[in-house]
Amino acid sequence: MHSFFITDLTPQTITLSEEESKHCVRVMRKRAGDEIELIDGKGTWAAAIIADANPKKCSLHIETRTSQPREKKIAFHLAVAPTKNFERMDWLIEKCVEIGINELSFVSCEHSERTKINMERCHKIAVSALKQSRQYWLPQINDLKKLADFANGTETNETKYVAWCEEKNQTLLACLAKAEKDKSIQLLIGPEGDFTATEIELLKRLGYKSVSLGKTILRTETAAMYAAVLVNAMTE
Amino acid sequence: MHSFFITDLTPQTITLSEEESKHCVRVMRKRAGDEIELIDGKGTWAAAIIADANPKKCSLHIETRTSQPREKKIAFHLAVAPTKNFERMDWLIEKCVEIGINELSFVSCEHSERTKINMERCHKIAVSALKQSRQYWLPQINDLKKLADFANGTETNETKYVAWCEEKNQTLLACLAKAEKDKSIQLLIGPEGDFTATEIELLKRLGYKSVSLGKTILRTETAAMYAAVLVNAMTE
Repeated sequence: MHSFFITDLTPQTITLSEEESKHCVRVMRKRAGDEIELIDGKGTWAAAIIADANPKKCSLHIETRTSQPREKKIAFHLAVAPTKNFERMDWLIEKCVEIGINELSFVSCEHSERTKINMERCHKIAVSALKQSRQYWLPQINDLKKLADFANGTETNETKYVAWCEEKNQTLLACLAKAEKDKSIQLLIGPEGDFTATEIELLKRLGYKSVSLGKTILRTETAAMYAAVLVNAMTE
Repeated sequence: MHSFFITDLTPQTITLSEEESKHCVRVMRKRAGDEIELIDGKGTWAAAIIADANPKKCSLHIETRTSQPREKKIAFHLAVAPTKNFERMDWLIEKCVEIGINELSFVSCEHSERTKINMERCHKIAVSALKQSRQYWLPQINDLKKLADFANGTETNETKYVAWCEEKNQTLLACLAKAEKDKSIQLLIGPEGDFTATEIELLKRLGYKSVSLGKTILRTETAAMYAAVLVNAMTE
């Protein structure tokens, strides 16, 4: 069954967004009295009955709620320097939701060409992938920050890695195989043109460990997805 | 440096295809006497001097050749039921080349909606990804075959897996962790709507072992890439 998305599933009576209302009433042709499914991207699934099938503000009464726990042993925070062509990031957001990461941050580096991100578009893609893959947890997506601000401001309990092509590093796989359980991992993926030596120095000073993603040179979005797959498979 | 692609790098004097000639002479503005790099997608890299900078049939003299060995311990053959929207397969081809698989086959299943594949387009995307990622080995890409024909006709020395959502299977990761070295692995990924029970029966009769790609439901192309990343990381 198709699910509808709403940020707050706590009230007994709720109103869908204009877009979801239109989809529910005009596209799916739901009427008052019909049952629909709702998700909030924070682990809650609910069944609700349509009270008023208004195509602009469809109102519903929640019948039942279920909480889906997060099943990952290790929380994964992926931080990426966005590509110039943002379609490659659209794609990455879709894949990250499907695979199931916890947090996605965009970071602006010296070699980055992108200075702005359309967060609404990111959210839309993420919600659509969440529905499509029938999952309950939406990754938190964070707006673009400068590398130094980002790296200084992140959680101190995260084990921090940076994927860097310039060195003979240990592979991410080898690091994950040794990682303890119930930890948080953050991995930073650089821009097209990689990090500068100064940026790597800064990151190392802040406790980042540089890792390799294998022998071939991957595009930014491929590297990000490569890491997401490995962390997922190794920590499931 | 940009490389040009040519299927046969064995003769001393070679002529680029019309497309590569145009790119070399019109776009890159190369002239007679200039040196360019060539790759054949079969592990050979060559340096060549332009003899005639003809924008339709640029001719060259090979100066030096180097052979790049394949570095993978395990050959990986990915077989996929193509998605209806072929852009998702374009993307998969690009990612497979970047990550580095050996062979990609397209397979038509009961739930497949696609009956034809533009092989020329597949080849073009693969060559472009090969150049972009500065690699030397182009995966062999095989045209669409019916599942039964495909499964009956593949190499007998391949260890064959099929990713299937319907069962509580061992994970691909667990299988790979136990796989011996210097082997060939084939993995079959089903269509949107999955394999039918009859298809799975046939595959099992032919020696395929069903494996899981984790707890979440992945799109066809995500599942294919997920597998490619794992095999690459686990067998590098």
